[in-house]
Amino acid sequence: MRSRLLDAASALFKARGLNGTSITAIANASDAFPSQITYYFRSKEALFVEAACRDILHIAERAEKAAARARTPKAYARALTDSVTGADGLVLFVEALILTRQRPDLVPEIARTIERLHVEGARAYAREMVRHRWRTHHAPDVAARRFWTIALGIALEGHATGRSVAAMSQAMREALGELAEAPSAEPAVASTLHLVAGSGRPSKDAT
Amino acid sequence: MRSRLLDAASALFKARGLNGTSITAIANASDAFPSQITYYFRSKEALFVEAACRDILHIAERAEKAAARARTPKAYARALTDSVTGADGLVLFVEALILTRQRPDLVPEIARTIERLHVEGARAYAREMVRHRWRTHHAPDVAARRFWTIALGIALEGHATGRSVAAMSQAMREALGELAEAPSAEPAVASTLHLVAGSGRPSKDAT
Repeated sequence: MRSRLLDAASALFKARGLNGTSITAIANASDAFPSQITYYFRSKEALFVEAACRDILHIAERAEKAAARARTPKAYARALTDSVTGADGLVLFVEALILTRQRPDLVPEIARTIERLHVEGARAYAREMVRHRWRTHHAPDVAARRFWTIALGIALEGHATGRSVAAMSQAMREALGELAEAPSAEPAVASTLHLVAGSGRPSKDAT
Repeated sequence: MRSRLLDAASALFKARGLNGTSITAIANASDAFPSQITYYFRSKEALFVEAACRDILHIAERAEKAAARARTPKAYARALTDSVTGADGLVLFVEALILTRQRPDLVPEIARTIERLHVEGARAYAREMVRHRWRTHHAPDVAARRFWTIALGIALEGHATGRSVAAMSQAMREALGELAEAPSAEPAVASTLHLVAGSGRPSKDAT
């Protein structure tokens, strides 16, 4: 039931915003009674923050999966930024962050969620660097914190000025700079073929 | 009168937020009639956005002045981030950006303000690089856009999780990375010392 309420709430909040969504509307959309919502979540604002936090963790997971399919550092950055800026949940999370100014009781959940984004982001980044043998100048924890700070800034600016997802994704890559570098060459022959093929990746990067 | 209303409104919005501030309170604080506020600004939200936009341009100006006194790239980054994250107006601007979701009529003013932050930031950055002969890997326009995206992201996260100004400033420097490099040495002998010190940078980059 809890999860059904969160699903319905998340869809309504995305479509109509916090102010445009009532507890009654969420109850109707999830075949529940309004009293069940207040039982599980206490207030509409608490439900909003919980839905936004759940959504952003899913967004991070999907971005990780999309990025894991990339074969070059460029494609990796692109998969991450496309996936994150293209998710409607990103701006919900931005609104949830702002909401804490009026509702300090909701800070702990937000703080925990940001912490989880950082920890899981750092783990995923470190894993991809090792797997592809990419070089990076960023420590994984710094890379993860930068990534999310920039994602939030881009979402805030982009939604405020009516930018397209493509423009936000591009602006995010610009702000991130290079996330990794493929090793330019590995020994002898492979390296030659490599130069001919024009790609920066080594050919024998068994896991 | 316009400017007096903006001053009073800005102080009240910072202290009590948008929802906690009424047109009557702003009128009282500026010895004006509520009708004068609606005459000049139409609505409380439009006044809020105008006050926030004016404030962020002042914040940018003050940051530029503080940074112009710095003598090293490190001190320059520190002056910029301390100045920007320490200003209460930064979070007002973040709220103004979010407000456009409900008030698309306020987008043009926000978009113009962001554009101005970018143009003036790029100009100031380029001027400082030339003046100190610092080296940078960032084009001035990219540096200015990154700077403001990161400032917004940091303000959003920091205020949502109750971080101190010092912690926000430090997180902002971490996310920005190096803004510039001082030329380590000029001609001849210095360059040798340089190689010995293990750096890969050439020494003769005049201008």
